[in-house]
Amino acid sequence: MAVVPRLHLEDPPLRAAVTVSLDAARSHYLSRVLRLAAGDAVALFNAEDGEWRARVVALDRRGVRLAVEDRLRPPCAEPGPSLWFAPPRRTRLEWLVEKAVELGVGGFRPVITERTVARLQRPERLRAIAVEAAEQCGRLTVPEFAPTRPLARALVEEAPAALLFADEAGDGRPLLKALDGEGPEPVFLVGPEGGFTPAERAMLRARTTVRPVSLGPRILRSETAALYMLACWGAVRGAGG
Amino acid sequence: MAVVPRLHLEDPPLRAAVTVSLDAARSHYLSRVLRLAAGDAVALFNAEDGEWRARVVALDRRGVRLAVEDRLRPPCAEPGPSLWFAPPRRTRLEWLVEKAVELGVGGFRPVITERTVARLQRPERLRAIAVEAAEQCGRLTVPEFAPTRPLARALVEEAPAALLFADEAGDGRPLLKALDGEGPEPVFLVGPEGGFTPAERAMLRARTTVRPVSLGPRILRSETAALYMLACWGAVRGAGG
Repeated sequence: MAVVPRLHLEDPPLRAAVTVSLDAARSHYLSRVLRLAAGDAVALFNAEDGEWRARVVALDRRGVRLAVEDRLRPPCAEPGPSLWFAPPRRTRLEWLVEKAVELGVGGFRPVITERTVARLQRPERLRAIAVEAAEQCGRLTVPEFAPTRPLARALVEEAPAALLFADEAGDGRPLLKALDGEGPEPVFLVGPEGGFTPAERAMLRARTTVRPVSLGPRILRSETAALYMLACWGAVRGAGG
Repeated sequence: MAVVPRLHLEDPPLRAAVTVSLDAARSHYLSRVLRLAAGDAVALFNAEDGEWRARVVALDRRGVRLAVEDRLRPPCAEPGPSLWFAPPRRTRLEWLVEKAVELGVGGFRPVITERTVARLQRPERLRAIAVEAAEQCGRLTVPEFAPTRPLARALVEEAPAALLFADEAGDGRPLLKALDGEGPEPVFLVGPEGGFTPAERAMLRARTTVRPVSLGPRILRSETAALYMLACWGAVRGAGG
């Protein structure tokens, strides 16, 4: 089973006959880990140019160079829900990022709630995880990370038209019902490990554009709740995408 | 926010007025990590006896002892899909176990496919992860791990009435449609990182009780596919459970 490696590459723009020099890390990956040889195919992609077939033309001390050949897929929008989340601790956060990208998240919106003060640590590493997940799962786009903001400020600044929040109280609408039908792309919000405070829940529920949803009878960890919502979104709206 | 710790305890049976001596690890956890004191409440549970309130009566060199008081929840069945899966590598496997328990998996059925030969490593550790996830998410039951078997043999031995497998070919029914309506609890099957071989796919599709399902346009990692299926099952069937 020959799998053509996919690499996300924003610079230079992907055009026929362009030659691309890979950086040291990617050169190492293609030449030493995957053991590609001259003539082997690689797919290059980004949101603006779509996905292109390229071939290895040189592997030497200066790194790997590729010649771009023809376009495999035109660029296309990949709409998906923004994920608002109180960053969990490191390993869980990294796992959340990888899985959310696979499941089609549109963007990451880290928020500070009363029971969490964590900011996004090591944003370059999270970005690298998002890129790798996009390469692996076939996306053309890599979701962006917004700066970390307090939840209340993010609500005012972005004013999402439909924010569904995972409410531990359990009296929200079942998620599939809330996702049913047409409407704007939803925004998902999951709280921190300790949950939202009563004041936060009251603040959220007071907004007409915010709706509590129920994720079932079990208490899900923060990152599990996020993936549950994204999986259901994909099953309801994204299946034909 | 006072959260009462939950501990899964199978021995001794949970009855009013029974005294329980915890092992060294759990004694350490309650006394040193959570810093409980005499009189503090702990919940104890298992599948046969349900969930019981207990109180710390002693913390000393011999460990922590609890007195069982009254029953909080009667035992009840927690039906859920069995998950048939080709074990991924260690960290991904451990994540899969934790998340699958949270999402309501009924049991773990590791299978060997042509593109994987991995057996379940360190079953005691996986069992401990499953117990911890059950404690955290509010389950009364801890799903069991079956011995690892070749896929073809597992199909013959268990002959599941409805096996839904994540088919990368993408022409299966959308998962939500396949889950819709009454019927036996489904069994889910996800393949290894390299996918099923053509021969395996043909073997699966030849069985009338096996149905391919589509998980959308992206290529999901093995453990992501498993969680996607379990999340959708929970949203369709388990929400009222």
